[in-house]
Amino acid sequence: MVLTGADVAAHSTRESLWMIIHGKVYDLTEFCSSHPGGERVLLKYAGKDATEEYDPIHPPGTIEEALTPDKHLGDVDLSTLAAEQKPAEQPAAKAPSGDAPLTLGACLNLDDIERAAEKLLKPKAWAYYRSAADDEKTHDWNRASFYSVRLRPRVMRDVTHVDLTTTLLGCKSSLPIFVSPAAMGRLAHPDGEKCLARVAATQEIPYMVSANASVGFEELAALAQPGQTLFYQLYVNRDRQKSEDILKRVAKAGYKAICVTVDAPVAGKRERDERAKLDEDAATDPNMQKAVKSAGPDAPDAPQDEPSQGIAQALGSYVDATLSWTDLAWVRRASGGLPLIVKGIQTAEDAALAAHHGANAIILSNHGGRQCEGAPSSLETLLEIRKFEPRVLDKVEVWCDGGFRRGTDVLKALALGARAIGIGRPFMYSLAFGDAGVSKVATILRDELAQNTRLLGATKLSEVVPAMVNARELEDNLYDGPYESPVKTILARL
Amino acid sequence: MVLTGADVAAHSTRESLWMIIHGKVYDLTEFCSSHPGGERVLLKYAGKDATEEYDPIHPPGTIEEALTPDKHLGDVDLSTLAAEQKPAEQPAAKAPSGDAPLTLGACLNLDDIERAAEKLLKPKAWAYYRSAADDEKTHDWNRASFYSVRLRPRVMRDVTHVDLTTTLLGCKSSLPIFVSPAAMGRLAHPDGEKCLARVAATQEIPYMVSANASVGFEELAALAQPGQTLFYQLYVNRDRQKSEDILKRVAKAGYKAICVTVDAPVAGKRERDERAKLDEDAATDPNMQKAVKSAGPDAPDAPQDEPSQGIAQALGSYVDATLSWTDLAWVRRASGGLPLIVKGIQTAEDAALAAHHGANAIILSNHGGRQCEGAPSSLETLLEIRKFEPRVLDKVEVWCDGGFRRGTDVLKALALGARAIGIGRPFMYSLAFGDAGVSKVATILRDELAQNTRLLGATKLSEVVPAMVNARELEDNLYDGPYESPVKTILARL
Amino acid sequence: MVLTGADVAAHSTRESLWMIIHGKVYDLTEFCSSHPGGERVLLKYAGKDATEEYDPIHPPGTIEEALTPDKHLGDVDLSTLAAEQKPAEQPAAKAPSGDAPLTLGACLNLDDIERAAEKLLKPKAWAYYRSAADDEKTHDWNRASFYSVRLRPRVMRDVTHVDLTTTLLGCKSSLPIFVSPAAMGRLAHPDGEKCLARVAATQEIPYMVSANASVGFEELAALAQPGQTLFYQLYVNRDRQKSEDILKRVAKAGYKAICVTVDAPVAGKRERDERAKLDEDAATDPNMQKAVKSAGPDAPDAPQDEPSQGIAQALGSYVDATLSWTDLAWVRRASGGLPLIVKGIQTAEDAALAAHHGANAIILSNHGGRQCEGAPSSLETLLEIRKFEPRVLDKVEVWCDGGFRRGTDVLKALALGARAIGIGRPFMYSLAFGDAGVSKVATILRDELAQNTRLLGATKLSEVVPAMVNARELEDNLYDGPYESPVKTILARL
Amino acid sequence: MVLTGADVAAHSTRESLWMIIHGKVYDLTEFCSSHPGGERVLLKYAGKDATEEYDPIHPPGTIEEALTPDKHLGDVDLSTLAAEQKPAEQPAAKAPSGDAPLTLGACLNLDDIERAAEKLLKPKAWAYYRSAADDEKTHDWNRASFYSVRLRPRVMRDVTHVDLTTTLLGCKSSLPIFVSPAAMGRLAHPDGEKCLARVAATQEIPYMVSANASVGFEELAALAQPGQTLFYQLYVNRDRQKSEDILKRVAKAGYKAICVTVDAPVAGKRERDERAKLDEDAATDPNMQKAVKSAGPDAPDAPQDEPSQGIAQALGSYVDATLSWTDLAWVRRASGGLPLIVKGIQTAEDAALAAHHGANAIILSNHGGRQCEGAPSSLETLLEIRKFEPRVLDKVEVWCDGGFRRGTDVLKALALGARAIGIGRPFMYSLAFGDAGVSKVATILRDELAQNTRLLGATKLSEVVPAMVNARELEDNLYDGPYESPVKTILARL
Repeated sequence: MVLTGADVAAHSTRESLWMIIHGKVYDLTEFCSSHPGGERVLLKYAGKDATEEYDPIHPPGTIEEALTPDKHLGDVDLSTLAAEQKPAEQPAAKAPSGDAPLTLGACLNLDDIERAAEKLLKPKAWAYYRSAADDEKTHDWNRASFYSVRLRPRVMRDVTHVDLTTTLLGCKSSLPIFVSPAAMGRLAHPDGEKCLARVAATQEIPYMVSANASVGFEELAALAQPGQTLFYQLYVNRDRQKSEDILKRVAKAGYKAICVTVDAPVAGKRERDERAKLDEDAATDPNMQKAVKSAGPDAPDAPQDEPSQGIAQALGSYVDATLSWTDLAWVRRASGGLPLIVKGIQTAEDAALAAHHGANAIILSNHGGRQCEGAPSSLETLLEIRKFEPRVLDKVEVWCDGGFRRGTDVLKALALGARAIGIGRPFMYSLAFGDAGVSKVATILRDELAQNTRLLGATKLSEVVPAMVNARELEDNLYDGPYESPVKTILARL
Repeated sequence: MVLTGADVAAHSTRESLWMIIHGKVYDLTEFCSSHPGGERVLLKYAGKDATEEYDPIHPPGTIEEALTPDKHLGDVDLSTLAAEQKPAEQPAAKAPSGDAPLTLGACLNLDDIERAAEKLLKPKAWAYYRSAADDEKTHDWNRASFYSVRLRPRVMRDVTHVDLTTTLLGCKSSLPIFVSPAAMGRLAHPDGEKCLARVAATQEIPYMVSANASVGFEELAALAQPGQTLFYQLYVNRDRQKSEDILKRVAKAGYKAICVTVDAPVAGKRERDERAKLDEDAATDPNMQKAVKSAGPDAPDAPQDEPSQGIAQALGSYVDATLSWTDLAWVRRASGGLPLIVKGIQTAEDAALAAHHGANAIILSNHGGRQCEGAPSSLETLLEIRKFEPRVLDKVEVWCDGGFRRGTDVLKALALGARAIGIGRPFMYSLAFGDAGVSKVATILRDELAQNTRLLGATKLSEVVPAMVNARELEDNLYDGPYESPVKTILARL
Repeated sequence: MVLTGADVAAHSTRESLWMIIHGKVYDLTEFCSSHPGGERVLLKYAGKDATEEYDPIHPPGTIEEALTPDKHLGDVDLSTLAAEQKPAEQPAAKAPSGDAPLTLGACLNLDDIERAAEKLLKPKAWAYYRSAADDEKTHDWNRASFYSVRLRPRVMRDVTHVDLTTTLLGCKSSLPIFVSPAAMGRLAHPDGEKCLARVAATQEIPYMVSANASVGFEELAALAQPGQTLFYQLYVNRDRQKSEDILKRVAKAGYKAICVTVDAPVAGKRERDERAKLDEDAATDPNMQKAVKSAGPDAPDAPQDEPSQGIAQALGSYVDATLSWTDLAWVRRASGGLPLIVKGIQTAEDAALAAHHGANAIILSNHGGRQCEGAPSSLETLLEIRKFEPRVLDKVEVWCDGGFRRGTDVLKALALGARAIGIGRPFMYSLAFGDAGVSKVATILRDELAQNTRLLGATKLSEVVPAMVNARELEDNLYDGPYESPVKTILARL
Repeated sequence: MVLTGADVAAHSTRESLWMIIHGKVYDLTEFCSSHPGGERVLLKYAGKDATEEYDPIHPPGTIEEALTPDKHLGDVDLSTLAAEQKPAEQPAAKAPSGDAPLTLGACLNLDDIERAAEKLLKPKAWAYYRSAADDEKTHDWNRASFYSVRLRPRVMRDVTHVDLTTTLLGCKSSLPIFVSPAAMGRLAHPDGEKCLARVAATQEIPYMVSANASVGFEELAALAQPGQTLFYQLYVNRDRQKSEDILKRVAKAGYKAICVTVDAPVAGKRERDERAKLDEDAATDPNMQKAVKSAGPDAPDAPQDEPSQGIAQALGSYVDATLSWTDLAWVRRASGGLPLIVKGIQTAEDAALAAHHGANAIILSNHGGRQCEGAPSSLETLLEIRKFEPRVLDKVEVWCDGGFRRGTDVLKALALGARAIGIGRPFMYSLAFGDAGVSKVATILRDELAQNTRLLGATKLSEVVPAMVNARELEDNLYDGPYESPVKTILARL
């Protein structure tokens, strides 16, 4: 059936809610109340074409999975749609600093990429990538913790040739670096995660695809070059069957390992993200604009609106908060026996438990400061493991992420026992420049790593040893309370 | 007797000082010298209607208690009062930052509420609530001390359901939070403390009514819902009989416990409050305006004015500075045996003494940084108790206040042994939005607490344990001098 | 002989240099090269009336002491002096912050007094009082060190009455505070140090008169009230006979003790002071103005001018750098046996040596940060003495100065064993307001001390004990190298 | 052969690339690909007169050494060269602060010199001297580490006369200071390093000539005064024969010691320097200007340009990265037995190794923060040596550099065992004022050293002892991991 714009426009209320996506008309009346992103946004586009809004934040197939086929009412005759009256383009949420680099050539380091992205990305995209929990102290601390560590460069060693290659779970990598899973690449670039996949291939580094990627994981796998390493990041779904289905498809698509994210049973409070949503609502909703204007002492008791959700909360709504250690075996089974990575370890206790429960690698991570405000940086957790559970470093591969921006940041973690480092936001920011941007991030890190490995007096990663790092300042602030080894406790119970 | 405005205006000097309050004419000539707020402000309104000035800073009944009935000379014929020539509206003491949220809907956290209040409240109200002692370093430190503590989030635990309920002295609360006693709510909103009482009922959290509330404690009790918990904060009066009378009325009104404030034998030096008063005086007093204009090198030796008192000093003038531990028994007796809370404990020694002298709960508090500049934050005092007097935590309930703004702040204190947290300024700031504002503060805290309890891997408050906190940085700066247990000393003397 | 302005003007070169001071004509041709303030300033006023420049920075009698009587050539006929063409008034060296208080009534604390002084004083006066050595880090640290110390307020003690009186070397004082010696009071106020002397009398606190006071010490003594305590600060002169003469006069004038300043064998490098001098030179010297204008890349090698001296260097030029411990006995003898105070102790070693060599009191001081950049604050030295030489506290009175601005600063030092605190700059700044300003400084400190003594739970100074202070942060940074007791070494040699 | 400008202009491509330097025409077609500074800059000046660009950044003889004689095609007829169309003068990269001193007379300290240089130097020169690695944290920390150290001034000692003389490897110096090797003096002044050599002579301090000086080392030696001390800083060339040739010439020219720089096997990442190059390229290259203008969201994938090299990378391209300890003997032999200094020691291990392998002096240095970001300051390395390898201080002379700006900075290092301090950037900055500037730097340091040596209670450098320094804050953050003495390991192997 072919419908007209006017047909659809007649169904713009909660009682009957139709919407156009990619030229198709859907009836969302029933679905409305269970929309992970809340009802309000659906009502905003009720009776209209929501393709432009829908596209960059939903992976392909989302609507098809969410609705039964009968909710697809037919196609719309595009010629019958009135050109939408858009509100004037919103200014960027924050004026970028005057000297932000404007070209990729002017970007000398990963901070330059970030500043450029702040200028080039849409406010909503910038807010989503950049946001962190609460007051963003943990985000800032992730970065600052590197500055409190000193290097101990050794001299008079032949450093003509330097070899940065390593393996992650047996997969070769040209660098001790992988692309961290981050969602919603198409907010920044039409090709979204495809850029990440293509460049990870040419740069020969593993790419861990986000469960919330805005390009389907099978589409990304189809782009893979021979020998390219893809990992899949899983958020376990409340509906376990859905997760099992995905895991089978992931294994079939050639992914080399499954990463279970354990630090996000609920989404963190990312106010920057929420504010971007509020700003957008205010710009498009005449009622809210009015409310803003009339507010003040004379109208203090105005009825409180349903709070706007940021992207993070909308995305995380299906995550299973019941996940526990014994589920690891289920994940492995469902994936057909792929190696397991556990992401989000923040204490020595949980590092030991992960190793005990069969994880092949763990990622020390506080989710880029996006989850629990106050969590330790991955460097701190690494030092805590060295203090309380040093044998974990022999039993599993220990990877880190969070705030790594410089080659020396990476080297500090490697020296203390990490095997690989995940880079998240910088790659997302670099999507503002497409493939060239992603490639630049990898190249900058490669150059800085090579240069500083040499300056440390090392020629391969195995020569980057603990004695090359003075982390005294962090060590003196490690947890020092009573420590009870959880694995000992488990073993004692047996 | 009915008097005219002209009759009253004829008595505008220290020799004969009449004033109109709520349409009644009072003779304040004798009272003038004992006015807790000083003579000057009375002289300023001598012969005039002072209702507008009087109202928000005096609890009902103040004037009736202070004067004998013969000082009520009669009523004024309101039609005979000339419309007052008001000075132009004073600008806010400080321009708020450009991006202060203007609506409650735009307030995502308690800091937003504070910034909104700075913009919406009258300068005098803002100054009174916000002010702290001396250079406000203790105020700032209260907040900063949370940032020096890290959390240790545990993962892979089923956190689907989280239960934040607890009890305070046996009274149920939906949150480990109570409304701290703070004075002068009507500076911010015509309903003043009534908003706090109403919302505490709907949010099911205890409300501790300030001795200096601008709504009478009996009026507030009359608003209470069945099962609602009200505590009463007492400043012991130099005239002990007055305190006994109040305590009897408090018990009769249904208050569940008495809180004795022990950190304010004299008021702290709150310069922000004093400056707001000076500004107000300057704006209304032609002589002071002139003085300001002519000041400078040519007039350095101008006679020094009697210093302006801030609200805090005026309010605190009746407090009994002789209070000592043995008085606790008297308070309990006078209240008919209500549980006792001691507020303002700042050392391990005094925590032990309070427990020894029969307190049921203690509040670790430096009065929001409003009393002794340099006092420890409540987190520091809590750690000091764990170090020197750990048994106190078993003997009394330990509550904390001062600088708590985030769910994680609350969780840090709870993990270290606190049972409940008092929130003061944020609730006062939220009065700028009336009931909706107060409710928003509670809701924000509830959401943040639920979210972060889960992120810590806990599902109820008893699972928030010391090992979830790394307070090493504070611990390493605790008092380390010789420690003499005061209770041991007392027991040794017996 | 009576000379005309034209007569004098004819002698304006280094070959023949006459000058008018207070209506008298002096021949400075020979003296010029030994002028402590350098030749340049003399050449600037050669042939002119320099009274206005001379007056506030030279104590009475300076010129008479420096020149033999024959250099007084006669008096000038004042009617023959042309009215001087003054350059336009120089703007203040630095724009004061917009909200600097403008009246004494608006000054609530000692920082307000400082900010007012910055606005009200002449740039040269402000620069001289405020300047400190090098990058002024020690000056700033003096103040900051107080913030790193926490108080431990005790509660539930009867603090109705508080007694702040004490004695300094047996002399009664209403406060544990004395006026520190500081020079050049007449830069700020025509009455200069007379204001300090008068107010010290009414406030009943000791006043230690600076050796470089701009009012003669005998003139100040003549103003003293019965029972008033004056101390005299001595800089030992290279010409010891001059010092002996002064000490005799000091003793005769009724001074109660002699303070030997030991931290200034040479003056510190006070660049703020030097810059003020440079600015003044530039404003009055056409050649320098031109140089400033033409400077830049085209004139990089311009001949370097003789550097301008600040006031500090000019004042200190007579100080004897050979002073050593054995000279204390000489000072005492020359003063007829007055008690001795040694000012400028910065290590535990020197505290012990001072006590060993018979000092009655020592002042822990880094000269307000004006001498050796990097020296410890007096709190640190006090803690160092407690660590290495605790018996010194029993043998001599230990006084402190440097950066004390708040009642709590004073109480922190007293709790750790200091007996009295010197206040320097704040009193000098307060001279901008004359007697009323000086009085205000004392009153603010008195009020803050009374208030905070009560808030600490004490009612007299002897109850302010070490356990009321947590100085852990400073203690953990004390010198920890090998410590050799110098007194033991001396005794071992005997 | 005499060529015309038109002849040369016809060879402006990579296929045939001619260039005019000092009136001579060279064929650079073959050389182009091996130019240490990259091809791009050559192409920019292809077919043109590049003298002005070439001159200040190449030492004399560079082109003659790089090309075989046949590449010199002949001289150009200067009259045939068209006057070049220069782009408008570029503004300074950064607006200097408003109060930067403009004349040498207004410079009171080394920071003033730096601020003046920022204003007076060309942006490229400023960027080259000032730049440091990565985020310049190490550069900043070099300076900040001094502030964390306190002095312990001793009093009551005769400090009338102070003697600052010392010897460096037996060579007399009037100060414990030498001119550190720094390259490219002619960027700042036409006479470049000649200024340094001349003033080092008059100030009687050693001058260590940079391997990359823009004035030839033999020309500098020819300027030397009798008894003047010159050291030569060597970067070992990949072509060892070239280094041997240089060392012979150095020894013949009268240099007193050879300094082998060991912390720069590759150049650090100096982004300030690289940015200055980018700015310059952008100002002169129409294509780049266009790229800058058109950049933005619409052109995100613009092809990435070959990155611009800063001066540092260009200069360092010949350095031999295979250098190892056993090469020290070769250097000594090649120099005819001159004493050896090893510059760039950053750990106790390498200090011990340098001493073991026969170095006569070591320089604790992180290359002014220009190499490995995160390296320790020289004060920290000095303390580390005191902790782990104290005997090194007896075996070799220990010199320091990096961030020294004040007399007290120097004294702190001397007290802890350093014998001499290298001053680098301040002397380079001072070249903006020519000889007078260089002289002023030395004079300021001399005055500050004399003054503070006295204030410490010392009269000669041997009296500046460890107990005069409290470095507790740095000591408590020293490396504390397992320490393995490398010399013991070597000896155990024998």
